[in-house]
Amino acid sequence: MDLNCDLGEGYGVWRMGDDAAVMPFIDRANIACGFHAGDYSIMQNTVRLAKQHKVLIGAHPSYPDRHGFGRRAMRFSADELRAILLYQIGALEAVCHAEQVPLSYVKPHGAMYNAMQVDSQLFEVIVRTLSELNRGRAEPLALMTLAKLHRETEANLAARYQVPLLFEAFADRCYEANGELRARTFEGAVLSEETAIVEQALAFAGGRAVQAHDGSELLLAADTLCVHGDNPQALAAVKAIRARL
Amino acid sequence: MDLNCDLGEGYGVWRMGDDAAVMPFIDRANIACGFHAGDYSIMQNTVRLAKQHKVLIGAHPSYPDRHGFGRRAMRFSADELRAILLYQIGALEAVCHAEQVPLSYVKPHGAMYNAMQVDSQLFEVIVRTLSELNRGRAEPLALMTLAKLHRETEANLAARYQVPLLFEAFADRCYEANGELRARTFEGAVLSEETAIVEQALAFAGGRAVQAHDGSELLLAADTLCVHGDNPQALAAVKAIRARL
Amino acid sequence: MDLNCDLGEGYGVWRMGDDAAVMPFIDRANIACGFHAGDYSIMQNTVRLAKQHKVLIGAHPSYPDRHGFGRRAMRFSADELRAILLYQIGALEAVCHAEQVPLSYVKPHGAMYNAMQVDSQLFEVIVRTLSELNRGRAEPLALMTLAKLHRETEANLAARYQVPLLFEAFADRCYEANGELRARTFEGAVLSEETAIVEQALAFAGGRAVQAHDGSELLLAADTLCVHGDNPQALAAVKAIRARL
Amino acid sequence: MDLNCDLGEGYGVWRMGDDAAVMPFIDRANIACGFHAGDYSIMQNTVRLAKQHKVLIGAHPSYPDRHGFGRRAMRFSADELRAILLYQIGALEAVCHAEQVPLSYVKPHGAMYNAMQVDSQLFEVIVRTLSELNRGRAEPLALMTLAKLHRETEANLAARYQVPLLFEAFADRCYEANGELRARTFEGAVLSEETAIVEQALAFAGGRAVQAHDGSELLLAADTLCVHGDNPQALAAVKAIRARL
Repeated sequence: MDLNCDLGEGYGVWRMGDDAAVMPFIDRANIACGFHAGDYSIMQNTVRLAKQHKVLIGAHPSYPDRHGFGRRAMRFSADELRAILLYQIGALEAVCHAEQVPLSYVKPHGAMYNAMQVDSQLFEVIVRTLSELNRGRAEPLALMTLAKLHRETEANLAARYQVPLLFEAFADRCYEANGELRARTFEGAVLSEETAIVEQALAFAGGRAVQAHDGSELLLAADTLCVHGDNPQALAAVKAIRARL
Repeated sequence: MDLNCDLGEGYGVWRMGDDAAVMPFIDRANIACGFHAGDYSIMQNTVRLAKQHKVLIGAHPSYPDRHGFGRRAMRFSADELRAILLYQIGALEAVCHAEQVPLSYVKPHGAMYNAMQVDSQLFEVIVRTLSELNRGRAEPLALMTLAKLHRETEANLAARYQVPLLFEAFADRCYEANGELRARTFEGAVLSEETAIVEQALAFAGGRAVQAHDGSELLLAADTLCVHGDNPQALAAVKAIRARL
Repeated sequence: MDLNCDLGEGYGVWRMGDDAAVMPFIDRANIACGFHAGDYSIMQNTVRLAKQHKVLIGAHPSYPDRHGFGRRAMRFSADELRAILLYQIGALEAVCHAEQVPLSYVKPHGAMYNAMQVDSQLFEVIVRTLSELNRGRAEPLALMTLAKLHRETEANLAARYQVPLLFEAFADRCYEANGELRARTFEGAVLSEETAIVEQALAFAGGRAVQAHDGSELLLAADTLCVHGDNPQALAAVKAIRARL
Repeated sequence: MDLNCDLGEGYGVWRMGDDAAVMPFIDRANIACGFHAGDYSIMQNTVRLAKQHKVLIGAHPSYPDRHGFGRRAMRFSADELRAILLYQIGALEAVCHAEQVPLSYVKPHGAMYNAMQVDSQLFEVIVRTLSELNRGRAEPLALMTLAKLHRETEANLAARYQVPLLFEAFADRCYEANGELRARTFEGAVLSEETAIVEQALAFAGGRAVQAHDGSELLLAADTLCVHGDNPQALAAVKAIRARL
């Protein structure tokens, strides 16, 4: 079980989160690629910071939507989506290459991430695009996606295109009994107490069930845990999880 | 002697030039990478078109200046310029990789191209950045730059960083006696008669002197000839050059 | 019956249509305001051109979507949509004020135009926003919208907010029997023959029925006719209509 | 003597400063207009906040440079600069009109502000553009500019175009003996101690000399004092100044 975090999410003079504060405590940095956040300089700095802390680097591509931070649902043809992914992943990989660190995986951001959980055609475009990038590559790029109870569709598609999957769970989000994340529009969607966050993280890490919103037990296998470091409470929770893992 | 042309210079619904018309007649396509022109879809389509016509592909990166088409002089630190180049070259190379064609070279665009002719520090940042991208690469990326009478500075820097240079001359631009391009603000800067353009192209191709604006003879060695195909006259000239080469 | 045309639809170096060619033949110029097309300089030049030809000026605001040319469906809260409209209309009106010509009306563009035809809540936000701009104004800004068979909803909302409506019909688009425009995805959606375009324009102008796609007669009252001048055929049709009106 | 502050400087999801915290303590809000910062929604919210606190509203237009926050020196023709100003001022004024509050003045931002201090031609374009907007206006828009020792050029140009001037001094910046702001690249350019900031503010307010960097006395007349509220220390200083004025 390792910890991943979305980083490099500023733009120009604007910053979001304190990347330097959280980087020492995580294993994987999902780095914004300029379409919802991030720019060439921020990407370069974030890659350097990840390298310094020996953190694995993933591309965090998005729909082209800076003003909406990539959270706006948008529709693209398969061909457009492929180009959107190639552009961003390639941009980040060149920075990695120049910094002499590998790019390890890809985690779509925001609305694209949400869409690929429910639209298997879109999921297929993503794994097919990664398989094209994986041609001739010693270590294939993996795809990070949401840990669910039922993951056959994703597993089959990924297997067909030989793209490794990384299933991520959330330390600070409440789950429904069916294994889905509780929607942010409902109360109790986000865990704010450090104790509860650490407890849920340790359950995922230990392969034990977490408690769903209705009180039932939910057993969800996960490879990596998404954490946030964009406020003091979140950062304290990350440190506490890291200390206990 | 081969022919190169700036392509993929539209944005969204806007088009510039008729890429499909000129592609069959050129050897190298300098493809815009999204900072002054081009976008993910246009880049993908232009790479496919180049592949179809077996045209070598070069990245045509720019300062971040879509509204000014990359023609605006801008100042960046060496570190920013490195990131600007890595981002765009990487974005295009990922498209190339997915289309299974190599990226061969880099030709900076507009104001960046002009700046590197007169600012050797900036030129060095560019070749150093290419050398970082060339690490572990079987065929190094070359840098395309302006053919001048005096090219020791560029040649020395490129040799130090082991970056091959491609010197380009212009078929349709008038030269001054000192080997510089006649500035566009002066009359006679651009050749418009097909005969004159073809004649100048053949002179460059044959290693013969061209006639400078003051009537003197100018002998300028060049590896590649920049042509334009963005209007019927220009396209006709390209076809005529191609037929004669 | 007058003629309106969407103008100022370039961006930076990119142009769309030949504004100078069509301006002499129209009565109303719908000028892009920078969100889907147009920029500060293009807007200024287009306002000057309209003034020179004594053409009435309308704002042609859009969703914020330059890359998609405002054709992408997007959802905004009523408050966001109000701000989107105010920003663009105000920007154009200041240019008009400095050029000493009035801004006369507003015609939403693309996806916003389509949405207001089917979403009366969105239509209400638009007329309410115009009514806020009309406060203290001698000549109220009108709203240009699609001429339909059933227009009670729009008429009632516009009356409630005291916003004059301008119903526009299309000279070069085929209509369905129910009064809707034939969708562009079907054959025969766009009239290309000059004779047919001129005939349809004259029918609208004379208050006579036009022929719907199924051959039935369609009587649709209209205040203004939308024409296009972005290709030689379209421009020829505009001139022919103007000559006959 | 009143207090002015740059506000509305976020973009999309990104925020800069805490507008709600500082608004109750200032007299004039310089609101970003979307070119370096701000967007339609942020502008609307900031205008509402200013209205609620009865704070005068000024437009804070910039060169088109979101990524560089308007701090990048750029060159525009007089005609382009006019259009750049009209677009932004008009956009904000429409929001003000809909919110039924007047727009009172204009304060150029960043690199444009710096340029107009040293380039009288550029200063003239700005006052001439304001004079065009002032035509037919009951209360003319004023121009806010830097309080200097020698201000004849600016005063003459403003008088010729009948544009009122508002000279601003800085509470938290150190001055050179010649009346210029000490450049930020030198130590001591920014006052950080609350006592020193309040003392300098009270000196300006009382028409008394402030102490320049070399220890000499500097008597600089000012109409308004620029303050910052983007960090807790700055906000505390603003409150202290307000309490003492």
